[in-house]
Amino acid sequence: MTDFFATHEEVLNRAVQAIAERGYWSAYPESPSPKVYGETAAADGKAAFAAYLGGEFPLGQAGVGERVATEVSPFGVPLGIEYPRAEADALIAAATAALPAWRDAGPQVRAGVCLEILARLHRNVFELANAVHLTTGQPFVMAFQAGGPHALDRALEAVAYGYAEQTRQVGEVTWVKKADTLHKTYRIAPRGVALVIGCNTFPTWNSYPGFFASLVTGNPVIVKPHPRAIAPLAITVKIAREVLAEAGLDPNLVQLAPEAPGEGLAAVLAIRPEVKIIDYTGSTQFGEWLEASATQAQVYTEKAGVNTIIIDSTDDFAGMCRNIAFSLTLYSGQMCTTPQNLLIPAVGITTEAGPKSFDDVVTGIADAVRGLTADPAKAVEFTGAIVNPDVLTRLTSVTELGEVVLAAQPLAHPAYPDATCWSPTLIKSTTGYDEEWFGPITFAIPTDSTQNSLEVFRRTVGDRGAITAVVYSTDEQVLDAAELAALEVGVNISANLTGGVFVNQSAAFSDFHATGANRAANSALTDGAYVANRFRVITARRPA
Amino acid sequence: MTDFFATHEEVLNRAVQAIAERGYWSAYPESPSPKVYGETAAADGKAAFAAYLGGEFPLGQAGVGERVATEVSPFGVPLGIEYPRAEADALIAAATAALPAWRDAGPQVRAGVCLEILARLHRNVFELANAVHLTTGQPFVMAFQAGGPHALDRALEAVAYGYAEQTRQVGEVTWVKKADTLHKTYRIAPRGVALVIGCNTFPTWNSYPGFFASLVTGNPVIVKPHPRAIAPLAITVKIAREVLAEAGLDPNLVQLAPEAPGEGLAAVLAIRPEVKIIDYTGSTQFGEWLEASATQAQVYTEKAGVNTIIIDSTDDFAGMCRNIAFSLTLYSGQMCTTPQNLLIPAVGITTEAGPKSFDDVVTGIADAVRGLTADPAKAVEFTGAIVNPDVLTRLTSVTELGEVVLAAQPLAHPAYPDATCWSPTLIKSTTGYDEEWFGPITFAIPTDSTQNSLEVFRRTVGDRGAITAVVYSTDEQVLDAAELAALEVGVNISANLTGGVFVNQSAAFSDFHATGANRAANSALTDGAYVANRFRVITARRPA
Repeated sequence: MTDFFATHEEVLNRAVQAIAERGYWSAYPESPSPKVYGETAAADGKAAFAAYLGGEFPLGQAGVGERVATEVSPFGVPLGIEYPRAEADALIAAATAALPAWRDAGPQVRAGVCLEILARLHRNVFELANAVHLTTGQPFVMAFQAGGPHALDRALEAVAYGYAEQTRQVGEVTWVKKADTLHKTYRIAPRGVALVIGCNTFPTWNSYPGFFASLVTGNPVIVKPHPRAIAPLAITVKIAREVLAEAGLDPNLVQLAPEAPGEGLAAVLAIRPEVKIIDYTGSTQFGEWLEASATQAQVYTEKAGVNTIIIDSTDDFAGMCRNIAFSLTLYSGQMCTTPQNLLIPAVGITTEAGPKSFDDVVTGIADAVRGLTADPAKAVEFTGAIVNPDVLTRLTSVTELGEVVLAAQPLAHPAYPDATCWSPTLIKSTTGYDEEWFGPITFAIPTDSTQNSLEVFRRTVGDRGAITAVVYSTDEQVLDAAELAALEVGVNISANLTGGVFVNQSAAFSDFHATGANRAANSALTDGAYVANRFRVITARRPA
Repeated sequence: MTDFFATHEEVLNRAVQAIAERGYWSAYPESPSPKVYGETAAADGKAAFAAYLGGEFPLGQAGVGERVATEVSPFGVPLGIEYPRAEADALIAAATAALPAWRDAGPQVRAGVCLEILARLHRNVFELANAVHLTTGQPFVMAFQAGGPHALDRALEAVAYGYAEQTRQVGEVTWVKKADTLHKTYRIAPRGVALVIGCNTFPTWNSYPGFFASLVTGNPVIVKPHPRAIAPLAITVKIAREVLAEAGLDPNLVQLAPEAPGEGLAAVLAIRPEVKIIDYTGSTQFGEWLEASATQAQVYTEKAGVNTIIIDSTDDFAGMCRNIAFSLTLYSGQMCTTPQNLLIPAVGITTEAGPKSFDDVVTGIADAVRGLTADPAKAVEFTGAIVNPDVLTRLTSVTELGEVVLAAQPLAHPAYPDATCWSPTLIKSTTGYDEEWFGPITFAIPTDSTQNSLEVFRRTVGDRGAITAVVYSTDEQVLDAAELAALEVGVNISANLTGGVFVNQSAAFSDFHATGANRAANSALTDGAYVANRFRVITARRPA
């Protein structure tokens, strides 16, 4: 049997180093270029995914006999992939039975298995990317990057944190105090069954940290995918089960929980006494229900917030507008990191080209969005598709809140005639922006001054939380004040992004994705706190 | 101004090393000998504490004008120390105002201040020991050790964990990815106001880990002492405030919250929205109320459980009986670590001197307790005094549950004529033992076999939790089975203690006090999970 730990020890050690140093590092190349992945990789991956369409997914996991097929592609592509409907009792019984051997295998074996799963996912990254692309509506290159290498980096980061935390003390020691000598053993006891509840938009990127953090620390994982984005996690579970079986372990350490429409399986599983860990990404409503109701479990949630850009001044007006426009357009604003609120002084701002009025700034950003979306064929490679009908509903209703600067327009997708693609909406408004409007919806909000912008920022993020924030200013004091405000309301902040870094994107091993310090998320995906309470240490002492 | 971090950096680094290596290490000598602490230290400390009696404690902290004096010494010594009654709004307002400068001081400054507080407490350790002795009823040497050096070691351990956790990633980095360069700053954001709720029996030992874990991670601390054991924490708060003031920081970062009788201040403070961290030691009832009610806070609790000894066989019958007897007698069983249930096969056990019947084993232990308590003048140096009237009530009511093998007897204390001192009770019983009987109360429980003992152990600890467990056996398979059972129910276990190590005692830097894996405690006092979520990391990114 392959020693997976030995195979992957070097990359693990490098990852452990990276989470301390936090410079740029990545284990999985983000370019889908044939030069990196080989001439046939893209076509092979596409074909591999196409083979799943309209048939039974080869999950290799017991089900209740029924099959479910609930996925609807935002690109209008018929999917029809059938998954074995799962049942809570059977999932939990199988997970519970698998726990002891996984616990006793220890941190090294577990880390080795987790890293082998990642290596195999990476080997099948184009298959995974096609699954993410077609189920989420992400444009392909983004689906490849965010759903593939970036998600794998986040998974590796979680494995590194989990491994480091379990091994931060010795496994055993001989303790000598005067005449007394004890041999002490420190064993890692997992919490119990872990539940990962996936989301529609980032089924791999948002699920992998919790999945691997729980798995590496000894907990069997049940993956409850979003009913509209099952395939990426089905591929993940399938590969994980194959690796576990090869390692002589119970494949039921990782199980998929596909459900029939309207079944509400997440809520059923979440309050089962055997379920001790829950990782969730999704709506604030269900996230807060989980936090309040699943009191038997450690609950890690990423919910919604009001991401904000504070515009005070800039020495690169075009760069600022271009950078913001890209952030607003990318995947139709359907990222938990997409900015929603632009706080701009009503009196305007100073720039390298002289003063710009409030309307100049709004127009500059709107024009930059138009530039990205003028040609539908190119636009859809930024916007992707609208993930579900709720977003479309909001796209209409939001226009009642203010003056529409940029009206959402349908975009024809050259490859997918039935795709639901739209350009973004930008409205000037002084109301409605203090809650999340998920989708390609941006509020340009006139404020009394930058000072007032900071007050609005503190109030809205303090009340609703946020995952991201940006400040544009040429004034160090303003940057400092904005960073202090961000520190106080507990949100990560970026300054003066005008180049190739966008606030939507956080880099594994360097950026903490969220903070866990505001209402938008109670954890950082990933840091020490994200892994440390997924297991406990049990000591046995014997006279030596 | 003294650089406290530089002064104490070496001991901090050594402590960080110790929590990884987990061999024997201590920073504060546990022997109260004049050879260690100087000829006059004991008398000076006694006099310093005596100076507080019957007067206003020099806390140097604002109060509402009223004074409270609620302490009652189990040794019958009049205390009459008056403390300024505190009020929730004022405490929280002062703590909140003190937070920003403490946050901005950073991990090094905070660690330096914490270690200087520990150094000054150590310099006043005899004063502290007298306070612990007279308020808790602990015998003096124990009050010195557990309330002084051992508590200080536990505090240092918490500082080490907290410091390591905050500094596990760099404070700033220049991140370079192709054309993009960002300067990133990682700031530690404390959770908010921390509340420490002290207990009657171990006001320092049980409070210091949470106190220092919260303080070093940037959170202002409000200490709500038990109304009967205020002085040890008043001395602690006084010294902490002095050090903070010397360091140019706000002394209100550490405040004492003395309350009038029956005020219920802990519950008032615990659900205040500003209170984000709670550390509690005490009854299961209030601990579970905190866990369920203080949902705005991270809640760390140590409650009650059913500590158990499984007796299968031994090759040192006398050593076993002596060791168990000492554990049962020490501080009248009023330790959260004192064994309560002795599970002994009804058919008896094998020993180096041949078979012993169930009654032989019980008699052996009872005789060993009698040996320790026969001479009242010597006995009280083991038993100390009964901490409060509830314990005495239980001492009577428990006798209805079975055959009394060892009846509690009043013990005259040579130094304190009004002390409430009693020898322990040991009863044979098959009922009542599945809940905690706090105090000098032990159940000898006949089981069908060691196998059955393990079942009872799993059931009772699984239902009620435990802080400690012991197994006596000459059979490796039994030891392994007991350790597996302990792993599964999540309790630390010791085997064959017959010498100078007692299960009641856990060693800082080596033993995790609790596990956080059973109902008796939701945390380990101290490990990574105990500190990691007391702060969050907030990132600021600027183009470099």
